[in-house]
Amino acid sequence: MKDIRVIAFDADDTLWVNEPYFREAEERFCELVKDYMPQEEANQELFKTEINNLPLYGYGVKGFTLSMIEAIMNITDNKGSLHLVEGALAIGREILGKPVVLLENVEETLKSLNGDYRLVMATKGDLLDQERKLLKSGLAKHFHHIEIMSNKNKEDFQKLINHLDCAPHEFLMVGNSLKSDILPVLHAGGTAVHVPYHITWEHEKIDHLVEHDNFHHVDTIKDILPLLKGQSYLKNGSYKG
Amino acid sequence: MKDIRVIAFDADDTLWVNEPYFREAEERFCELVKDYMPQEEANQELFKTEINNLPLYGYGVKGFTLSMIEAIMNITDNKGSLHLVEGALAIGREILGKPVVLLENVEETLKSLNGDYRLVMATKGDLLDQERKLLKSGLAKHFHHIEIMSNKNKEDFQKLINHLDCAPHEFLMVGNSLKSDILPVLHAGGTAVHVPYHITWEHEKIDHLVEHDNFHHVDTIKDILPLLKGQSYLKNGSYKG
Repeated sequence: MKDIRVIAFDADDTLWVNEPYFREAEERFCELVKDYMPQEEANQELFKTEINNLPLYGYGVKGFTLSMIEAIMNITDNKGSLHLVEGALAIGREILGKPVVLLENVEETLKSLNGDYRLVMATKGDLLDQERKLLKSGLAKHFHHIEIMSNKNKEDFQKLINHLDCAPHEFLMVGNSLKSDILPVLHAGGTAVHVPYHITWEHEKIDHLVEHDNFHHVDTIKDILPLLKGQSYLKNGSYKG
Repeated sequence: MKDIRVIAFDADDTLWVNEPYFREAEERFCELVKDYMPQEEANQELFKTEINNLPLYGYGVKGFTLSMIEAIMNITDNKGSLHLVEGALAIGREILGKPVVLLENVEETLKSLNGDYRLVMATKGDLLDQERKLLKSGLAKHFHHIEIMSNKNKEDFQKLINHLDCAPHEFLMVGNSLKSDILPVLHAGGTAVHVPYHITWEHEKIDHLVEHDNFHHVDTIKDILPLLKGQSYLKNGSYKG
């Protein structure tokens, strides 16, 4: 990793808690429409609507809220009351107002890296929402800037790397999603470190193992520090100099 | 203007038609709820809801759609049918699917500048929507990248200029909104060229004259070419070398 100059961090579920808020929102949504459809089925309907709408709305809370509203129309066959829609708007607003809870070791890791590398936050979702979370998190001082990505495919990372004026071998991505933060970066010629989070959105799951010379897996974010120093990292938590 | 290295272009109503689509959407919205409220009053209610929601949702079609839905609840006192909400979702989707109509002289101007300057697109709105419009416009090849801004205040431009690694006196912004594209850039130490568009959203209007050494007004976008070459521009359309 001696060539790395720019480190991009995914935000949601890499720096701070996010996915549990969406799980909670889905539960509240199913509760809202439970007179019209069994909860598990309603959850599936919402998921289907979200995935259908991704090419149109992209990622983030606003698209999620619009999908909840569309799902209400399908679930109630347009016969539900506007109070259900009011409930969906309230669920969306509640996600936007959630506190930002940092994940373990995030702050000390960023502090250690800042100065030696250009740090950017590279995330999907709504810009305003992510800016607000960055502000609430107190982490803004560690980042050069935020990159909002409409998607995280190989081509999106190629554009990002080009835009950051660095070469692929100088670029490191750190994130919790193998599908979005790791595989496309490896395909774009970059290096990627996977820091797992205990909940993964269905849409972000992959069903195969990742093996690549530029792929690294750590159990906690602070383990990227010895990796960057060229110390090989052993799974039992000790480091070989 | 001899120091300019980076030129940022606003997109909506600077490069392509946008505001007329929103005016049309507002008319359709008023038509949708006309059984509950007179059209002019409904339009005011929608505008009020949009402005109230700006700090929460930011700019763009998704926030506009959520505001239409919220306004329906207020206008009908929660007594309307879900078909109204369906109508609002359809209006939003229609804006997202509109053709991209380039404004006069845009393509030739960008073509003339590309190579001599780093060109970026700096716009508010939803990233995915703006990316889609850029793709449809055929202008993508002229731009180094897109900058989505959650707002366009002085501080936002200071962050942008810093992020672009240029000095304020090397930065030129071109846009149709005196409030968003011109005044904050001048306050941040940059140079700004105003290219007016015949329709301005109520929220973007200002009620005073702009006078500043780094402020320029042109009637059509191609008039920035002689300005950049240091030829003083006379209002009657001739140039003084």
